Amino acid sequence: MARTLIGELQSKVGEVVEVRGWVNAVRDQKRVQFVIVRDATGMAQAVLGKEDTPTELNERISALTPESAVTLTGLVVADERVKLGGLELQIEALQIDALAEPELPVTAESALDKRIDWRYVDLRRPDRRLIFEVQGTVEHAMRGYWREQGFMEIHTPKFMGSASESGAELFKVEYFERTAYLAQSPQFYKQMAMAGGFEKVFEIGPVFRANPSFTSRHDTEFTSVDVEISWVDSHEDVMAFEEQWLAHVFAVVKEVHGEAIEETFGVETVVPATPFPRVSLEEAKELLRASGHEGVPGPDDDLDPPSERALCALIARGARSRAGLMA
Amino acid sequence: MARTLIGELQSKVGEVVEVRGWVNAVRDQKRVQFVIVRDATGMAQAVLGKEDTPTELNERISALTPESAVTLTGLVVADERVKLGGLELQIEALQIDALAEPELPVTAESALDKRIDWRYVDLRRPDRRLIFEVQGTVEHAMRGYWREQGFMEIHTPKFMGSASESGAELFKVEYFERTAYLAQSPQFYKQMAMAGGFEKVFEIGPVFRANPSFTSRHDTEFTSVDVEISWVDSHEDVMAFEEQWLAHVFAVVKEVHGEAIEETFGVETVVPATPFPRVSLEEAKELLRASGHEGVPGPDDDLDPPSERALCALIARGARSRAGLMA
Repeated sequence: MARTLIGELQSKVGEVVEVRGWVNAVRDQKRVQFVIVRDATGMAQAVLGKEDTPTELNERISALTPESAVTLTGLVVADERVKLGGLELQIEALQIDALAEPELPVTAESALDKRIDWRYVDLRRPDRRLIFEVQGTVEHAMRGYWREQGFMEIHTPKFMGSASESGAELFKVEYFERTAYLAQSPQFYKQMAMAGGFEKVFEIGPVFRANPSFTSRHDTEFTSVDVEISWVDSHEDVMAFEEQWLAHVFAVVKEVHGEAIEETFGVETVVPATPFPRVSLEEAKELLRASGHEGVPGPDDDLDPPSERALCALIARGARSRAGLMA
Repeated sequence: MARTLIGELQSKVGEVVEVRGWVNAVRDQKRVQFVIVRDATGMAQAVLGKEDTPTELNERISALTPESAVTLTGLVVADERVKLGGLELQIEALQIDALAEPELPVTAESALDKRIDWRYVDLRRPDRRLIFEVQGTVEHAMRGYWREQGFMEIHTPKFMGSASESGAELFKVEYFERTAYLAQSPQFYKQMAMAGGFEKVFEIGPVFRANPSFTSRHDTEFTSVDVEISWVDSHEDVMAFEEQWLAHVFAVVKEVHGEAIEETFGVETVVPATPFPRVSLEEAKELLRASGHEGVPGPDDDLDPPSERALCALIARGARSRAGLMA
């Protein structure tokens, strides 16, 4: 029988289907057994009655452990009392594809290092998974937007013969008899593509920086999102492009995942209005000083992370109060 | 004035527009000057009349060199005698954004090593560019197909603490006080994602193999296309998926670029019919022996590249003759 995804069960009421996934929980009661089964599209309740003498199927359900991999066959029945989608699966057969250990090595409350040690178990939680789903949606929305505007996707070399930016934070690779370096950014090749008439390019790929990583802003390896455009008159063209692009991405994320993000993380997905508020660096420092922010960088310095955060909060407050005035 | 792409000129007849791109060629005649200008969307002819005493604009056009970057302003006029799109641009202004050296370092006929040395000049040729356009279309078609089927895009680490496949062909990286290795494939992490319930994942990204590269089948760094799916019953599920996926990609490439590929490379884009012909390894060797192919690998060996090529040719001939019989 072909597998039915849990997200598709609504359209299968009255049919016998096969569902495959992970045991989220088992409730083994006196007269009835419930198995909550989970796949990438959702969770469903499966149910089996129990007589005075449990059947072999009852016994195998009793022995199920959370996170076991199972294939369940059963009739889909609508029942609006069931919280999970208003339906349940009346179990006719159970195949245990892999029985999990009774004790899971990691729980939702485990410390981060333990969660990372057991990453593949931790990732099964829908709230962890959501992060990756949002990431995929973000990328897909970006690529769709770029391609509609005539951008080409490129894959630039990660091995370099020499440094492309500063020489400071390069990783060295033993490249046969020689030394190669890992690319810190696609910058050099993006510019080659411009000189080569590609006009608009993008790349999403890994970059490598030999920073000992002490903050969340540094990492030795990360996925970099890069675009480059030709024939601009000034940075204003680039800023206008970036605004539209980001607003589009936020709008797609809100549409696809807004509800789930709010439910899971308690955060509203806000689509930024364009044009974004603009302040010069000098004005930014002025605003920060006026707000009482401590440690505003000097005239020749960039904003440091705390100043950036404080500035963003100031601007967001300003945007909200302007919106309030207009409403 | 906002830039008009050459591909959009058809809709601008009767308007004064600004075109930006590269000088493809200049024909400086006695009474008229032609500039063929090229951008990522095509080529157009620009024209300016010349009196007995050339104007300053005439002189600047005379001085133009191929591959110079220019901004041309002019009236778009329909003229069906013009081969390039049945229109021309009557030049009103010329801005030379960058004048190219009179002698280009590389031509269409240059040897490959010279072309690679001057890659950004070489890539300006539309036939070189087409390869990258097809690549972008292939990727976009793949990603769209995957996402429609519920795949998630992942970005797996390229730094590994130890070998993920065999230890043989690993690149070593000096990772602060320790040694890291560059990932030879996303295999390990793809499988983690399966155990983590991601069900279907894909990644397009670089992989690294310390093979000294002597053939077109080996490379120290290449862009790998990886997918992984869960809950399959057998390799038949995987093969069925791959067939549909590849047929879709070929269909999109044929639709978007089929004509350009045929014009440029003289190759017809053939969308494979599904299911693909299937032969066991034993049958494959039998077919090769029967065809008179020399050097068929022994019973315990895989097919070598020449045998694979010969087999593909045999199967393609068979498919064609079957199609012929059916027609």
